[in-house]
Amino acid sequence: MHIIHTIQALREWRKTAGSVAFVPTMGNLHEGHLALVREAKKHADNVVVSIFVNRLQFGQGEDFDQYPRTLQQDADKLADEGVAVVFAPDEKELYPNVEQRYNVEPPYLQNELCGKFRPGHFRGVATVVSKLFNIVAPDAACFGKKDYQQLAIIKGLVEDLNFNIKIIPVDTGRAADGLALSSRNQYLSDSERAEAPRLYRELQKAAASISAGSTDYAGIEEQAAAALVAAGWSVDYFEIRHAENLAVARQGDKKLVILAAARLGKTRLIDNLEVSTV
Amino acid sequence: MHIIHTIQALREWRKTAGSVAFVPTMGNLHEGHLALVREAKKHADNVVVSIFVNRLQFGQGEDFDQYPRTLQQDADKLADEGVAVVFAPDEKELYPNVEQRYNVEPPYLQNELCGKFRPGHFRGVATVVSKLFNIVAPDAACFGKKDYQQLAIIKGLVEDLNFNIKIIPVDTGRAADGLALSSRNQYLSDSERAEAPRLYRELQKAAASISAGSTDYAGIEEQAAAALVAAGWSVDYFEIRHAENLAVARQGDKKLVILAAARLGKTRLIDNLEVSTV
Repeated sequence: MHIIHTIQALREWRKTAGSVAFVPTMGNLHEGHLALVREAKKHADNVVVSIFVNRLQFGQGEDFDQYPRTLQQDADKLADEGVAVVFAPDEKELYPNVEQRYNVEPPYLQNELCGKFRPGHFRGVATVVSKLFNIVAPDAACFGKKDYQQLAIIKGLVEDLNFNIKIIPVDTGRAADGLALSSRNQYLSDSERAEAPRLYRELQKAAASISAGSTDYAGIEEQAAAALVAAGWSVDYFEIRHAENLAVARQGDKKLVILAAARLGKTRLIDNLEVSTV
Repeated sequence: MHIIHTIQALREWRKTAGSVAFVPTMGNLHEGHLALVREAKKHADNVVVSIFVNRLQFGQGEDFDQYPRTLQQDADKLADEGVAVVFAPDEKELYPNVEQRYNVEPPYLQNELCGKFRPGHFRGVATVVSKLFNIVAPDAACFGKKDYQQLAIIKGLVEDLNFNIKIIPVDTGRAADGLALSSRNQYLSDSERAEAPRLYRELQKAAASISAGSTDYAGIEEQAAAALVAAGWSVDYFEIRHAENLAVARQGDKKLVILAAARLGKTRLIDNLEVSTV
């Protein structure tokens, strides 16, 4: 496995490589990431994993500085998975002009759901992913459904900007008690960790109501949010949306997704669950 | 020469083609465009020319509807030049969602100079060029210095978004009397056509002052604009800027460019001239 730090060296390697499936990450890899890598292996001769903590997608007061950086452990895990290349540029390599002047600007969806609480986040994601796509030139790229809104935005930008890349969604990895795997889970205290699976349980309850025929989406949302608040959470949102375009769910929509973001202490967790109406 | 109308067919052709130099155009080709094509031929096995009148870069009240569409004549000229592929998609092929949702957003420069008079123009240019780059996947692309601000913006986006494409600037083609070649020259009446070369003469005068040592950039700008107004022009701007980043020219800058946009009757003409300080 090659660990490559510069764009030039990555491009040099790319010239003679066959097909490439790409998994962009911010490192601190857990089983959820490794599931992306295993899926990627099915789609190309080589898997390239990028590890880059992207300042552009962090807001003021967010955890950019404390975000765990664990390159050596990450590389060991990826070598075990048969990854061809780890691309780990430093900030100067990706942002040589200090300021990123040209940005990929997503539509209004960037200001909803997580975007409402993280201004500029999805612009930062769309921009760095576009950069990485242009550097890695993959044939396919894997994104986790855990970051459902991010996946929708990546799909949209690939379509609208005509990237010739197949986007492969990968199901969310979960702990035995249902908690979605996330680098941020390690910020949880023991008692918070014990409480954390409630988020997924509320998503499951809401999905069960919808599967049973309820179309009182506002009522379902309110009930779930209230249950979380009663258990000590601060709820950023708990919303039922159209599964493809993430528009607010309407009567007659067949495929929905329930998305939630809520905080336990200082840790912000997100999760979601797709559901079909009857 | 192939005339290709769909993205899929273009990508199919691209798979087995060698290197590609790309010339994006809006058609209605004149000698200026053919100079771009001839330059492109020096840089790759194949030249691909796109012809697409891009609605996104036209403002309200601009000449999108009346912009000349002359595909057959354009294709004949390009065949004579040994072009490999003309890529001529229709609007639905490039904008299947009616609205372009994801845009490439240039920095504040997009609101200066021509951008001040054409809101959204450079966002439209940056977005369609990014799309075309992703579709054509060229090794190099030629842009005329006639559209100097556009060239600066393309260079910037290639750098910032890491497109692996060499941008080749090509000198402005001119009529014998100095008028920069432009599709919009055909809108000029006979008397306007006779007057039009004054724009370039004023650029030359300003360049001569700078070459002779003057650093009174504001004075030079005012004098040139006044001369144009006296001759019946409406002047959008006449400005001296840093040749690379297009920042307002400052004492000590070595490489400058003088840029102008002015209207004769209903026709808006632009031109520019690079100059070195002493």
